[in-house]
Amino acid sequence: MKIDQVTTPALVVEAAVLEANLTSMAAALPGPRLRPHVKAHKCTSLAARQKAHGHHNFTCATMAEMEGMVRAGLGEDLLLANEVVDAQRLGALVRSGARVTLAVDSPATIATAVAGGVEEVVIDVNVGLPRCGCDPTSAGSLADTARRRGLEVRGVMGYEGHIVGLPDRAKRIEMIRPAMEALLAAHADVGGDLVSAGGTGTYDINGWATEIQAGSYALMDTAYAELGLPFQQALWVEATVISVSPGWAVADCGLKALSMDHGNPTIEGSEVWFCSDEHVTFAPGQPVKVGDRVRVIPAHVDPTVACHEKIFVVDGDDVLETWPVDLRGW
Amino acid sequence: MKIDQVTTPALVVEAAVLEANLTSMAAALPGPRLRPHVKAHKCTSLAARQKAHGHHNFTCATMAEMEGMVRAGLGEDLLLANEVVDAQRLGALVRSGARVTLAVDSPATIATAVAGGVEEVVIDVNVGLPRCGCDPTSAGSLADTARRRGLEVRGVMGYEGHIVGLPDRAKRIEMIRPAMEALLAAHADVGGDLVSAGGTGTYDINGWATEIQAGSYALMDTAYAELGLPFQQALWVEATVISVSPGWAVADCGLKALSMDHGNPTIEGSEVWFCSDEHVTFAPGQPVKVGDRVRVIPAHVDPTVACHEKIFVVDGDDVLETWPVDLRGW
Repeated sequence: MKIDQVTTPALVVEAAVLEANLTSMAAALPGPRLRPHVKAHKCTSLAARQKAHGHHNFTCATMAEMEGMVRAGLGEDLLLANEVVDAQRLGALVRSGARVTLAVDSPATIATAVAGGVEEVVIDVNVGLPRCGCDPTSAGSLADTARRRGLEVRGVMGYEGHIVGLPDRAKRIEMIRPAMEALLAAHADVGGDLVSAGGTGTYDINGWATEIQAGSYALMDTAYAELGLPFQQALWVEATVISVSPGWAVADCGLKALSMDHGNPTIEGSEVWFCSDEHVTFAPGQPVKVGDRVRVIPAHVDPTVACHEKIFVVDGDDVLETWPVDLRGW
Repeated sequence: MKIDQVTTPALVVEAAVLEANLTSMAAALPGPRLRPHVKAHKCTSLAARQKAHGHHNFTCATMAEMEGMVRAGLGEDLLLANEVVDAQRLGALVRSGARVTLAVDSPATIATAVAGGVEEVVIDVNVGLPRCGCDPTSAGSLADTARRRGLEVRGVMGYEGHIVGLPDRAKRIEMIRPAMEALLAAHADVGGDLVSAGGTGTYDINGWATEIQAGSYALMDTAYAELGLPFQQALWVEATVISVSPGWAVADCGLKALSMDHGNPTIEGSEVWFCSDEHVTFAPGQPVKVGDRVRVIPAHVDPTVACHEKIFVVDGDDVLETWPVDLRGW
């Protein structure tokens, strides 16, 4: 099949660029030094490619991602780097036989882990992003609570999400030190082998963590492209021009096919004016006609992938494979 | 089932509020005066409720919506208010026996309609929003072209999308006149019975159109709530508090469960700080604990619904029905 036969809007990944990104990351952070975060692609076929590059341990953000990875036979060592309160659903996951490690940051989430039959946890530590994670000074006592309740505490995690997206590398380097020093202080109180942290924007400057939870490096987006990382844009949304007016054109890729939380998408050589539910209005850099294809590059890859049912993997115009985005939903 | 047994994040609709909204609209625009736009809810079960309120004709934005409405037996009079170029897929739709009317705004989209075996079209006219639609002065000649090629031209459509969301009603009233006068001028050149236009924000001030394409009135969102319309918020995303820190809390409803193109969602009585992929961080108005439920109200309903597989229809805490969001995708 050729890509111009695919119904648009369609999520497309250039196989060679994806492979180059996976290769670069595997060289920088081989094997267990990387715990790829599947929330960035929500696709077990892509996770299988990451495994082929030597990464056997994965990070998930949702129960659905955990369950899907187990179904796909990728459950060797799964970290749910998020708090959950559904003990019943955890129980089914644990009984599947996968290795399940759960982030906990409170007595309530420790109680859920126990009730769900989870055996292993990490203490989730707030390293500066106001989101989940306990205060670093409480990590030790939470670990004690977890151990008293029979849980194995594998270590700590602390996501520096307030740093990973900063465009200025020097600023990232300056800010990551206090964040990771707080995490290591917590780790000294907690014990265990794991210090799990990091993302695509800090993969090469986070020398404190034992493993990095990067995900976006595989496909990339325009926000991460501004950081000067050695990963290239592998993904776009293929769209069809459906209307041409003097001064602008419209393609069939809108808000429902793209995440807008990081702003408008990009069409190379053209100026994007705005997106509506099913349309992108843009000033084309060169004349276009109805039926032409355009590549719309999202500003934020993770939620854009979650808008689609499948990924078309291409080599130029040839569709090599179609991968289900099988980790969507919750 | 009770709503607190449903996995979060979950899309929830209060049945009584939905019914009140449908009743108000059916009183204001009975029968064929409204052509409900299904893009706002992407749910044939909800469309069936609109039909029960007397609206038999529907508006769609995508081929998948058209196909799904036909499958659900709601194909009495479907307008695809959008340009498409896939003649093969149109052909299958036409052969289903549904009444299919297609918007066209160029010789190329007229050619697609002909190639797909479509029998009826409307001329899509630009009334001020730089998106699809021909210049009003070209509408007559496009209608001539369409008729020469054997198509029945049912009239015109022209969506005043630059006006429907303006919070100031006086401004909406001021701006709609020139937009609709342009559409009527085009209609004079085109002929036919239909003048299709409008949305929830102009449903009661657009006295020019023969039918109004409103959709958001059924479920509403915080953007439309600012317009002082007689429709109430029927929808929210039910979320669970998963982490509590001094000064803020986190619930499990993020960017992938909400559309962010109109900005942050609202949690009544609390201040929303920001959303991440799977989290909303907020300052609670009163103390919350892990496991509590919160209602997250989206700023923009249409793309939020498209993030979910199903809608839980509730009466208070009781889940009455579960409706598939069966018109997603393309």
